[in-house]
Amino acid sequence: MNAPAKTPDPPYYAVLFTSVKSASTEGYGEAAERMIALAKVQPGFLGVETTGSGDFGITVSYWDSLKAISAWKAQQEHFATQARGRNDWYGRYTVRVARVEKEYSFEKKR
Amino acid sequence: MNAPAKTPDPPYYAVLFTSVKSASTEGYGEAAERMIALAKVQPGFLGVETTGSGDFGITVSYWDSLKAISAWKAQQEHFATQARGRNDWYGRYTVRVARVEKEYSFEKKR
Repeated sequence: MNAPAKTPDPPYYAVLFTSVKSASTEGYGEAAERMIALAKVQPGFLGVETTGSGDFGITVSYWDSLKAISAWKAQQEHFATQARGRNDWYGRYTVRVARVEKEYSFEKKR
Repeated sequence: MNAPAKTPDPPYYAVLFTSVKSASTEGYGEAAERMIALAKVQPGFLGVETTGSGDFGITVSYWDSLKAISAWKAQQEHFATQARGRNDWYGRYTVRVARVEKEYSFEKKR
């Protein structure tokens, strides 16, 4: 996960989740890990990148269609965890759904 | 910068830059700050979010058009810094250009 995701040729879709945590983070780590494990077995999942520092985090997940994103948003356990996130962990967040139109990568030759 | 960017109603564009740094990071911090200052005064710039941990980082910048993104990519000082990034700082990176189609935000009531 701590590397650029290997995604197919565009077009595909990205969900950008940018968040500021609140003071209470009990249970957050386990839930975040669980959500990533759960996303990975959802239909249409292509990859995920997540990082952060202090209270600020960015998670980007990649999907093959808007339909796959809607299904993930409505997935029962994910849906319940979103509510817990609003109650417990997040001071604020923004979710953006975007269509990836172009992608290029660089890798250093050794 | 350490908060979700305030962006206008979609559609607009995002550049997702996901990177793994190499061992050499001399001059990186100053250059990264300079690039963000420079982006902020580019035509069409809408906002930026950046974070990371260890050698892994995600930076997302928002733009009002693909034309603004092309102009930023070609901006002289930015262009030179991209080359320095490949030579000096990055083991690998992926750049994705995406069209933001939907956005929603949550902010906790105090």
